[in-house]
Amino acid sequence: MKIDLNSDMGEGFGRWTVADDDGLMNVISSANIACGYHAGDYAIMDRTVRLAKERGVAIGAHPGLPDLIGFGRRNMAVSDADMEAMLACQIGALQGIAARYGHRVTHVSYHAAFGNMANADEARAMRLVRVIASLDRELTVFSMPGQPTARAAEKLGLRVRTLFLADRAYTAAGELVPRGEPGAVIHDLDGVRARVRQFIREGTVTTIGGDVIAVDARAILVHSDTPGSVELARAVRAEIDTSEAA
Amino acid sequence: MKIDLNSDMGEGFGRWTVADDDGLMNVISSANIACGYHAGDYAIMDRTVRLAKERGVAIGAHPGLPDLIGFGRRNMAVSDADMEAMLACQIGALQGIAARYGHRVTHVSYHAAFGNMANADEARAMRLVRVIASLDRELTVFSMPGQPTARAAEKLGLRVRTLFLADRAYTAAGELVPRGEPGAVIHDLDGVRARVRQFIREGTVTTIGGDVIAVDARAILVHSDTPGSVELARAVRAEIDTSEAA
Amino acid sequence: MKIDLNSDMGEGFGRWTVADDDGLMNVISSANIACGYHAGDYAIMDRTVRLAKERGVAIGAHPGLPDLIGFGRRNMAVSDADMEAMLACQIGALQGIAARYGHRVTHVSYHAAFGNMANADEARAMRLVRVIASLDRELTVFSMPGQPTARAAEKLGLRVRTLFLADRAYTAAGELVPRGEPGAVIHDLDGVRARVRQFIREGTVTTIGGDVIAVDARAILVHSDTPGSVELARAVRAEIDTSEAA
Amino acid sequence: MKIDLNSDMGEGFGRWTVADDDGLMNVISSANIACGYHAGDYAIMDRTVRLAKERGVAIGAHPGLPDLIGFGRRNMAVSDADMEAMLACQIGALQGIAARYGHRVTHVSYHAAFGNMANADEARAMRLVRVIASLDRELTVFSMPGQPTARAAEKLGLRVRTLFLADRAYTAAGELVPRGEPGAVIHDLDGVRARVRQFIREGTVTTIGGDVIAVDARAILVHSDTPGSVELARAVRAEIDTSEAA
Repeated sequence: MKIDLNSDMGEGFGRWTVADDDGLMNVISSANIACGYHAGDYAIMDRTVRLAKERGVAIGAHPGLPDLIGFGRRNMAVSDADMEAMLACQIGALQGIAARYGHRVTHVSYHAAFGNMANADEARAMRLVRVIASLDRELTVFSMPGQPTARAAEKLGLRVRTLFLADRAYTAAGELVPRGEPGAVIHDLDGVRARVRQFIREGTVTTIGGDVIAVDARAILVHSDTPGSVELARAVRAEIDTSEAA
Repeated sequence: MKIDLNSDMGEGFGRWTVADDDGLMNVISSANIACGYHAGDYAIMDRTVRLAKERGVAIGAHPGLPDLIGFGRRNMAVSDADMEAMLACQIGALQGIAARYGHRVTHVSYHAAFGNMANADEARAMRLVRVIASLDRELTVFSMPGQPTARAAEKLGLRVRTLFLADRAYTAAGELVPRGEPGAVIHDLDGVRARVRQFIREGTVTTIGGDVIAVDARAILVHSDTPGSVELARAVRAEIDTSEAA
Repeated sequence: MKIDLNSDMGEGFGRWTVADDDGLMNVISSANIACGYHAGDYAIMDRTVRLAKERGVAIGAHPGLPDLIGFGRRNMAVSDADMEAMLACQIGALQGIAARYGHRVTHVSYHAAFGNMANADEARAMRLVRVIASLDRELTVFSMPGQPTARAAEKLGLRVRTLFLADRAYTAAGELVPRGEPGAVIHDLDGVRARVRQFIREGTVTTIGGDVIAVDARAILVHSDTPGSVELARAVRAEIDTSEAA
Repeated sequence: MKIDLNSDMGEGFGRWTVADDDGLMNVISSANIACGYHAGDYAIMDRTVRLAKERGVAIGAHPGLPDLIGFGRRNMAVSDADMEAMLACQIGALQGIAARYGHRVTHVSYHAAFGNMANADEARAMRLVRVIASLDRELTVFSMPGQPTARAAEKLGLRVRTLFLADRAYTAAGELVPRGEPGAVIHDLDGVRARVRQFIREGTVTTIGGDVIAVDARAILVHSDTPGSVELARAVRAEIDTSEAA
């Protein structure tokens, strides 16, 4: 099992940054690049794609709601048709930048409220995946396993890559414990490493209630904007490499 | 000589509009579509491309500076690298929308200050045309004849379509009389028609000083946001049809 | 009974406009001026306040959600604390402009989703009115009668001016028939005039179901952005003048 | 001589930050607060004013050009009338927030390109200072000594507070060596301390060419966004306290 080490990149705006993109690009194998709606601007997108190309990192669009102040985390009362258009604009813009560097956008991974809204309704999830397919049927759709987006993509015959979130607690149902609830985010580096090891070797995660459940995932998402993310990503990379060497 | 009737489209924002796009789309043969920087948003881009597809109108990107309040008419101290990235993002976003409707972006036509800045420096003009070529070598570059952008596009082997501006006064050097100077814009509908007729039949324009000079152009640009633009476009269309029937 | 003729003003953005502000300013007695969040920008605010001062029109802030593309009509998941800060920024900005022209902001009237969200929760309504009071206790709060905002303002001892919406249908409970429902907006000019006359002379409105109910209002709001708004405002003005002369 | 320790505050946007505002607020005596044009938003302005009030720090507006991506550092082709309106909106918005907390805006300090453009033309400098005076004649205008803005403020009878920039090199003419030139910014903490000491004790600075010139300033500006700014501010604070105790 080949594991993809995935992270959000280019989530600054103007002179503002949230992560050590340069450091992380040495460690990850795929990057979800913000496309200017919740974060990112033309210059940051350009720099991030160029960096990914130089380091041999695969790139995907990381579309969000048009809400810089809220970092795309606040739901908005937008229509499905609006979400379709936003999605096409964002993927297209990144494809435009990628073309400059002879790189190629090979996946799409939704950001925050855009993803929540996409997955809140099966029909909407399908409409949005159709947009992805209309731009490029070779695009891989990144998703938590079992979500409407993953199902819609499979139904349309698109490739799906399922994600394991190494630093987030899981419920017995295999869903993320919502941010804000106690224990939702795992800050302890050793704890995260142990979870990654367990996931890689056994394909399981220990839930917040102590159960061990199967996780059907092919990529590990490391949040770029948490303190120590580069160190964490290196630890995950080491686990992956050990596992693959075995 | 086949003449393209060209106009700027989709230059509203949110609920705001500046032109009767629906009316004009029945008359024009190509549309320069705003890409969200000086005007336009995801929903307007989507609607405009769909309309163009329905009416069989060719579409091009109409990239501008990121300045909604100034409608992209104010120069900004941005670097060449910034302009390159803006250009790629804008064309790409429109290509993304076009893909949804099975339409295709076939040209690029700069808006206002973006165009002025592009043409203020030969090296910059070349850098920007290289961006266009990197996205799609089949893109036609729209330009006033004789400008750095036209020269750069020719040098790179891209197609160029030169523009005649029917409602703008020309200097003896074949350049536009700058907006703001007396007589720069021709508001008289009959006057504009006469100029179109002269251009189509004789390939010339009478300058503001009264000289008759040759105009090497293959498209007539009608400004969508002037009062009576649909009527004007119809008049130009009639002249073109008459000429082609002849 | 002195009736205030009130309208939203300055709801353009950059070069875009939605109403004939210049025409309306000759007829209305108070203006709700957009403050840059859902519409309006520094230049438009400046021009609108100057015009109001010249014509002797009272001015109020017309705060909205920060959503230009949605014209402040889309609910957003923002906190009460965010709404408080938005409100203070918007009133303050307009006060800043007013000071330039020796004019004074004398009321506040919420726009669209900002108003809906304010009135969806009694505690929130009170928090927001407290913000208004902290800026200037002389500010009059405009509101539909019976709403949480009106109650909160009365509780704090602020002046309240209740609104009658001449071109909107009412339910038997004295609330507006929501936009989008059939008959919600009355487009017929004569019908609107008759409603204004009835309201002024008898203090009542005929509901969508045909009942006649009392309307406790001291101002008539004319929507500036509907076609024929200047003509409508003139008709309302004539009714008011006739009534006051009687 | 009482010396004001001054710094820019609230220059983040949404979730993005550039400085340890909380740390600096313990050390400085006055804060220039971004007003949402080049940086800052409603929530950040609110939080920053509240913090300043709690720590007893005086607050001023820090108006910039409307250019978040460029952080207000790029000149824009805006008219004087536009700059006047921008200025009034920004000061007013901060006054609105200040009113919530019983705090008061007591000064204005221009940011980056806004300041450069204001000082590039004597008539413009005067127009802008008139705007400040129209909002509140008690506002103190912060400025480098000898600039058009300082002269205009003095002419209008406004208070002026002149600034010494501790970490920037000076020319023999008493002006700042432009950013980008070698040696323009002094990064060495000990060097900066020595300059502060010399300025406080002797009222002089050693220029980039080695001359010692007089500096007529009453405030020391510490840049909040340079690494180690809190440590630097503490060192400057120590020098000021020592000097005042003497």
